[in-house]
Amino acid sequence: MSPKESYDDLSQKDVESLSGRSLSSSNATGSGLRSAGGAKGKSSWKLKSVVTLALTLLTSSQAILIVWSKRAGKYEYSVTTANFSVEALKCLLSLAALFRTWNRHGVTDDNRLTTSFDEVTVYPIPAILYMVKNLLQYYIFAYVDAPAYQILKNLNIISTGVLYRIILKKKLSEIQWAAFVLLCAGCMTAQLNPSSDHVLQTPIQGWMMAIIMALLSGFAGVYTEAIIKKRPSRNINVQNFWLYIFGVVFNLVAICVQDYDAVMNKGFFHGYSFITVLMIVNHALSGIAVSMVMKYADNIVKVYSTSVAMLLTAVVSVFLFSFHLSLAFFLGSTVVSVSVYLHSVGKLQTQK
Amino acid sequence: MSPKESYDDLSQKDVESLSGRSLSSSNATGSGLRSAGGAKGKSSWKLKSVVTLALTLLTSSQAILIVWSKRAGKYEYSVTTANFSVEALKCLLSLAALFRTWNRHGVTDDNRLTTSFDEVTVYPIPAILYMVKNLLQYYIFAYVDAPAYQILKNLNIISTGVLYRIILKKKLSEIQWAAFVLLCAGCMTAQLNPSSDHVLQTPIQGWMMAIIMALLSGFAGVYTEAIIKKRPSRNINVQNFWLYIFGVVFNLVAICVQDYDAVMNKGFFHGYSFITVLMIVNHALSGIAVSMVMKYADNIVKVYSTSVAMLLTAVVSVFLFSFHLSLAFFLGSTVVSVSVYLHSVGKLQTQK
Repeated sequence: MSPKESYDDLSQKDVESLSGRSLSSSNATGSGLRSAGGAKGKSSWKLKSVVTLALTLLTSSQAILIVWSKRAGKYEYSVTTANFSVEALKCLLSLAALFRTWNRHGVTDDNRLTTSFDEVTVYPIPAILYMVKNLLQYYIFAYVDAPAYQILKNLNIISTGVLYRIILKKKLSEIQWAAFVLLCAGCMTAQLNPSSDHVLQTPIQGWMMAIIMALLSGFAGVYTEAIIKKRPSRNINVQNFWLYIFGVVFNLVAICVQDYDAVMNKGFFHGYSFITVLMIVNHALSGIAVSMVMKYADNIVKVYSTSVAMLLTAVVSVFLFSFHLSLAFFLGSTVVSVSVYLHSVGKLQTQK
Repeated sequence: MSPKESYDDLSQKDVESLSGRSLSSSNATGSGLRSAGGAKGKSSWKLKSVVTLALTLLTSSQAILIVWSKRAGKYEYSVTTANFSVEALKCLLSLAALFRTWNRHGVTDDNRLTTSFDEVTVYPIPAILYMVKNLLQYYIFAYVDAPAYQILKNLNIISTGVLYRIILKKKLSEIQWAAFVLLCAGCMTAQLNPSSDHVLQTPIQGWMMAIIMALLSGFAGVYTEAIIKKRPSRNINVQNFWLYIFGVVFNLVAICVQDYDAVMNKGFFHGYSFITVLMIVNHALSGIAVSMVMKYADNIVKVYSTSVAMLLTAVVSVFLFSFHLSLAFFLGSTVVSVSVYLHSVGKLQTQK
């Protein structure tokens, strides 16, 4: 498999550049270093597992923080400044990790921050795609309600799989395709509620927008993977810096357009609470975890990771917020679990 | 298409083609025949497809007849006499098919109606198991309502798979097991409705009874297959006769115990309408189709066939009774379709 080959080639510095990084998980560091001298295949497998686990845990705690913040009452901070803070924090964390690498190993071609115009032109594209998707999100609610949107969002599982195949030209086995359809159906089933049948009354415009949003989101993910994997030996923190700096710029523009008066009158951090800060930190770490998964695993792993996170969130919410799990949730979780199993069985078969 | 016709014509040559078929592996025989004779393997595959299709169509029309009869108003016939009529009709059809075979090919050891005491003692067991299960059905409604029972009934998919493995010692591949779990989850999902969450409040007694009923039903199915497959060259109509004659006897006892007065005062066929007769004919043909599937295919095929029939019924009901299909139905159907696909993919892999 090509991604495996590409990160098997990873120079030891790349793995070590993660050392001391307290971003996603301190375990990543330890395991990366411990096996640095040994089998590289094993260390890359470990790294892949750690970043996947980190993404899963961060995504599920993200949803829990959202529920928590909603329970705590309406939050009054400006969403654009929060988004800006997330992007800025991601940039700062990437720079901090880079400084450490430079101190330890010196500046090399692979961890140098300066870059060619050719290399950097592709980096704003995912940010633009996500921005267009987020804009569409405001309009789709004219056609579908929030619970229906939650269900339609799962279409991006299918779009990611299809674009992953077309753009990255990576093959999935027939069983893995079957598993992917099941993942989508299972996630939708798990989110069913008594009013879900509204989805079937979605007008054609709603469907079109949902499909376009799924394609945009899938394309952004696959494109990011393509950028990050294009130069496997390139330090991930440099790649992250260039990815995130455009997010900083775009969100700065959004603040000026949308919340200029509010920020000028009430201050930038107006309305921030402890939980707002927690959510910003969580979003920043999740974003970094997504990049790491793109570097060391792939979009398919990312989709599985966030889908399992969705189920984890629901289970944890039972204990934290005494949520009730529906029968649909159990059935959907069963289907998702079988899908995860089939994906790994299918992978073994393509490797044979 | 009448299954009677299809098995009548095929009986002699297929008994030949099936002779030597071992109890434990139908696939082995199928492929063995294909390589040896060619045409014979194809004919057994055709027979398998025809009986499976017949079972699917009969089962789905069964459910439609039930809906139709309910819409036509409450029916006033005695259920015990209807059950008796079904069993008696099955016996008569089997005998009619036998007479034809005797006329055409003469009486042989394999199509002789007389039987040894040893052979016949096992035949009443499935009938007894089904009777116990039907008795339990009256009691389980103290703990679960009808829609919840519809969902719990799907547990027999799992019990059939497990007992099929344990009793008939036939192996399913890992992917086929995964497909079986999906079939169960998919069928349950397709039958979800806004009040389905009641199922989760089922008391422990309800769960125990549902599980016992699933085991009884699974055991009866697997046991029937074992009886029928034990002597592969034995004419299926003889085997059916002995299976059904005990049903006739047991239902005669049930009439005497339950409806003696009603039958004596109002007559045996009191309250029968055209639709009652249609339902009896349908049940009889379905029963025969089940036996044929047990003979020429297996319990796994039977479970898939009846599950797909359940989905077909819903789709046909949209046109006949302007039913509305729920989102859960579409998701469940998707999962069931993937399950059917995985089952066949899994089969190819075990044959490799």
